[in-house]
Amino acid sequence: MNKNTITVTTLRRTKIKTLLESAEADIQVCVKGWVRTKRGNKHVSFIALNDGSTINNLQVVADPNIISEEILKDVTTGASLSVVGKVVASQGSGQSVEILAEAIEVIGKADPDSYPLQPKKHSLEFLREIAHLRPRTNTFSAIYRLRHAMIFAVHKFFNDKGFLNIHTPLITHSDAEGAGETFKVTTIDPKNPPMNEEGEVDYKQDFFGKETNLTVSGQLEGELAALAMGDIYTFGPTFRAENSNTSRHLAEFWMIEPEMAFADLDDDMDLAEEFLKYLVSYALDNCKEDLAFLAKRSEDEEKSKPAAERHDMGLIERLQFVRDNEFQRITYTEAIDILKNSKPNKKKKFKFIIDEWGADLQSEHERFLVEKHFKKPVIITNYPKDIKAFYMKLNDDNKTVAAMDMLFPGIGEIVGGSQREENLDLLMERMKQMEIPEHDIDWYLDTRKFGTVPHSGFGLGFERLMLFVSGMSNIRDVIPFPRTPQHCEF
Amino acid sequence: MNKNTITVTTLRRTKIKTLLESAEADIQVCVKGWVRTKRGNKHVSFIALNDGSTINNLQVVADPNIISEEILKDVTTGASLSVVGKVVASQGSGQSVEILAEAIEVIGKADPDSYPLQPKKHSLEFLREIAHLRPRTNTFSAIYRLRHAMIFAVHKFFNDKGFLNIHTPLITHSDAEGAGETFKVTTIDPKNPPMNEEGEVDYKQDFFGKETNLTVSGQLEGELAALAMGDIYTFGPTFRAENSNTSRHLAEFWMIEPEMAFADLDDDMDLAEEFLKYLVSYALDNCKEDLAFLAKRSEDEEKSKPAAERHDMGLIERLQFVRDNEFQRITYTEAIDILKNSKPNKKKKFKFIIDEWGADLQSEHERFLVEKHFKKPVIITNYPKDIKAFYMKLNDDNKTVAAMDMLFPGIGEIVGGSQREENLDLLMERMKQMEIPEHDIDWYLDTRKFGTVPHSGFGLGFERLMLFVSGMSNIRDVIPFPRTPQHCEF
Repeated sequence: MNKNTITVTTLRRTKIKTLLESAEADIQVCVKGWVRTKRGNKHVSFIALNDGSTINNLQVVADPNIISEEILKDVTTGASLSVVGKVVASQGSGQSVEILAEAIEVIGKADPDSYPLQPKKHSLEFLREIAHLRPRTNTFSAIYRLRHAMIFAVHKFFNDKGFLNIHTPLITHSDAEGAGETFKVTTIDPKNPPMNEEGEVDYKQDFFGKETNLTVSGQLEGELAALAMGDIYTFGPTFRAENSNTSRHLAEFWMIEPEMAFADLDDDMDLAEEFLKYLVSYALDNCKEDLAFLAKRSEDEEKSKPAAERHDMGLIERLQFVRDNEFQRITYTEAIDILKNSKPNKKKKFKFIIDEWGADLQSEHERFLVEKHFKKPVIITNYPKDIKAFYMKLNDDNKTVAAMDMLFPGIGEIVGGSQREENLDLLMERMKQMEIPEHDIDWYLDTRKFGTVPHSGFGLGFERLMLFVSGMSNIRDVIPFPRTPQHCEF
Repeated sequence: MNKNTITVTTLRRTKIKTLLESAEADIQVCVKGWVRTKRGNKHVSFIALNDGSTINNLQVVADPNIISEEILKDVTTGASLSVVGKVVASQGSGQSVEILAEAIEVIGKADPDSYPLQPKKHSLEFLREIAHLRPRTNTFSAIYRLRHAMIFAVHKFFNDKGFLNIHTPLITHSDAEGAGETFKVTTIDPKNPPMNEEGEVDYKQDFFGKETNLTVSGQLEGELAALAMGDIYTFGPTFRAENSNTSRHLAEFWMIEPEMAFADLDDDMDLAEEFLKYLVSYALDNCKEDLAFLAKRSEDEEKSKPAAERHDMGLIERLQFVRDNEFQRITYTEAIDILKNSKPNKKKKFKFIIDEWGADLQSEHERFLVEKHFKKPVIITNYPKDIKAFYMKLNDDNKTVAAMDMLFPGIGEIVGGSQREENLDLLMERMKQMEIPEHDIDWYLDTRKFGTVPHSGFGLGFERLMLFVSGMSNIRDVIPFPRTPQHCEF
C-alpha cells in the first residue's frame, strides 16, 4: 500500500462540488470526505462520499481487487476517507461523474455500533439532541449552506446600496425598548454579592460599574449611526429571557436592522419589500440543489399532516410567489374592518373576537389576513399608538403611529418597523406617558436635539426568514446551536 | 417660500457621494445632510454639507438674495438641511462640483451654545465620551465606512472561496478554552439567589438550568461544523471579563474564526496570509478617500511624538507593504535564537530577558522581531506545548505544537491559529494534563471518535485589523460603542 499512500498525500484535494460541476472525465483526482453509505456485494462496493461542499454525494466505486478487504471493512457510515481515483462518466448514480478508486485511506473510523447517525431516517427531535453531529445529515447541511447564502445576500444587498454595517453593542445598560425580559451580564458572584449601605446589591462593584444586560435590539444605537452616516444596518445576535417554549422563539437569535436617515414609512416599506424579494431571489438563484432537497423533504413531511394544515404550494413555488408578487399594503384600520366582517369572527371561530378598533392583532388574525383573505405577504401600517413602542412617529391623527408589520404566509410577522419620532417634544411626551426615564437614554435624545431628521427602519428576524426559505417548521432547526429555556448545550 | 418648499419635498434626494462622483453640472438636485461649517460674508455663504456617504463635503453656495437671512441664521454646525439647487462646476472648494442653492430647509437645528461638536479639533478622549455623536466627525465617519468595507471584504473573501459562515452561540456553558475570565449570563437575582441543599447557588433554577456565560471563542463549535461541511468561518462578538484597561483590550470585540477540514498548519498559514493581504488590498482599492484622510490624520498625530515612536512609513505605504511582501515564517525555536543573540537581550534592554527555550514571547520580543529584525509581518510556528491551548496538535518532537501566531508591525499578534489535535487519545491525554473535564466537552470529543480528520483554523481579532488598517492607536476608537471595565455607555 506504500505507493498508494504516497499518491494520496501528494495529490491536491478536489472538492466534490467542483468535481461534479466540472464533470471532466479521465483525470486522476483526490477527494476527501465522510462516508454517507456503502452498498454493493463481494465484487464491487459503492461508497457515497460527502464533503459538505454540496448536497450531492460522490459515488466512489471500489473494486476489491484494488482496494483491500481490510480497508473496506472500515469504510462505514461516518468514517472519513481520502480517495485517489479516476473520474469516469457515471453509470447511474444520479450524478454526472463517479470515481473508480485506485487508493483509499481511512483517515478516521466511525464505529457502527456507537455512531449515532446511521443511514436511516432520524427524527428532528433526536437530531436536535446531537446538534454537534447534525450538520453531517443532508437536511442540516442543506439548511446551513442556505443560511450562509442568506447571510451573504444580506451583506451584499446592503453593500450594493451603500448601507454601512454597524456593530452595535451586545452588552448594554438600558432596556429602554422594553422589548421583554433581559439576561443579566455580570461578574458578581451571586453567592456573595457586594452590598451597599441601602442593603441592595452594589453594582458599582460589578465589571461595568452598573447593572448591565444582553441587548434586545440594536435599533437605538443604529439610529445614532444613521443620524450621522445616512443609511446603515446592523446584523447581530439579540436576546430574550422569555420563558417561551414554542417552535417560533429562541433566547438567542440573529436580527438585521437597517435604519435610513431622510426616509419615511413609505421608503421603509419599499426597502423591506425589495430586501425580502432580493433574499428569496438570491436563494432561488444560488441554492437550487439545496432548495430542491428541502422542498422534497417538506413535501414528504406534509403528507403526514391533515390536509387543512398543508401548504397550497410547494416550497419553491412559495418562494417564487413572494419574489414575483407585490405585497399587499393595508392600514391597521382596514385590517380591523376586514377582520370584523370575516367569517371566523362572525362565527366566533377566532379565539380573540375582534369587536373594536384598538385591539392588538393576534397570530390567528394575521394568518387569516395573509393566508385566507389576501393569500400573499401583507404589510399592515399605522397601528394604534397604545400597542406600539415609544419611538414610533405619531401620525397627524394623534392616535396612530407610522409603524408597519410585514406578515408572511406560514410565518406570521417577519419584519417590524416604523418611522421614528424625530420631534424631541413629542418623543419626550411619549416617554413620559410610557414611564421611560429620560436620563437612561439622554444620548438617544441628543440626536433629536441636534440636527434631527425624519428617519425610518425595521427589524428582520433572521431565523424567521430561514424558516420561510427552508420550509422548516421549528426555529430550533434553522440555527446551528439553539438556545431555549433549559437548553444551552454545546 | 411656498414654491421652494414644494420643490424641496418633491425632488428625490441625491447622495453627496453620487453627486460628487458623477460631477454632472447644470442639473437641479436635492441633497440632504448635516452642516459641518458655514463661512462667508454678507454677500454670500459657503455651507459645507455632509451626509455620511463620503468623507467629502459638498459646498453649498447660498446667496442672501435667494435664501433669506432668517433661514441662514439657523444654518449652524450640526444642523440638518434639505437643499435644492443647481449643480455647477466648483470654483475652488476642492471638489468637482458645488451647488447654488435655490431653496434651503432647516430640518433640525443645532444650538451652537450646546452642540458639542464645534468646528475645531476635539481630542479622541473627548469624542469617546460622546460616542453617540462622534460618527458626525470626519475621523469617525471614515473609520466606520472603513469598518463596513472590512466586514464586507471578510464575507466576500470566504464566500468566494466556498467557506460557509456559521453562527456559533454567544451564550455557552463551557469555558473549556480557558481563554480568560468570562461574564456570567443569568436571570437569577443576586439579592435572593435560589440555594440548593448543599448551600450553593442553585443554577438548576437559572434560565438554562445551569451556569452559563458569554463565549470567549466560537472555535470549538466552528470545528463541529468544519468536521461536517469542510470549510467554515465564524464572524461574531466574543467577550473577556478581564480587568485590562489598555489601548489594545476590549471586554466585547469581534472575531473571525475560519476552520478547514483536511488542512494542516501550512494550509492554515497560507489561508491567513492570503486573507490579510486580501483585506488590506480591498481597503486600498475601495476606501481611497477615507484612507487618504486617515493617513493624513495619522501623520499629523505622529508629529507630536518622539522620533523613535514614529512609523517608518505612512499608513498607505504600510498597507501596500503588507499587500506586496511575503510574510516571514519562522519557528519558535528560530525566534528564540534570534532573540537570545539580539542587542536588546545582550544589553538587557528587554524587560524580560530571553535566556532559554520555553519562554513565552512578550510583546517587546514580538515587536523586536517584526519591527527591527525582519521589518515585515512575521508568522511564528511550533510553540512549546506548555504555553499553548489543549486542542493544538502535538508535533512529532513531542514538545511543540503545530501553532502559529501572526505578528503585525505596530499591532503585535493579529492572528493566532493552529492545526487541531485530531487524535482522540492524544487529545484526551492533553486534557488530563491540563485538567479539563471530559464531560464538559464530550460533544467536542465525538468529532474525534467518529470520522476524525486533520483540520486547522485561526482567529483574527477584527478590531486589531481595524487598528492596522485605520492607523488609529486606541482600540476604543475603531469600534462604535466600546465596552471596557467601568464603561458600558449608550
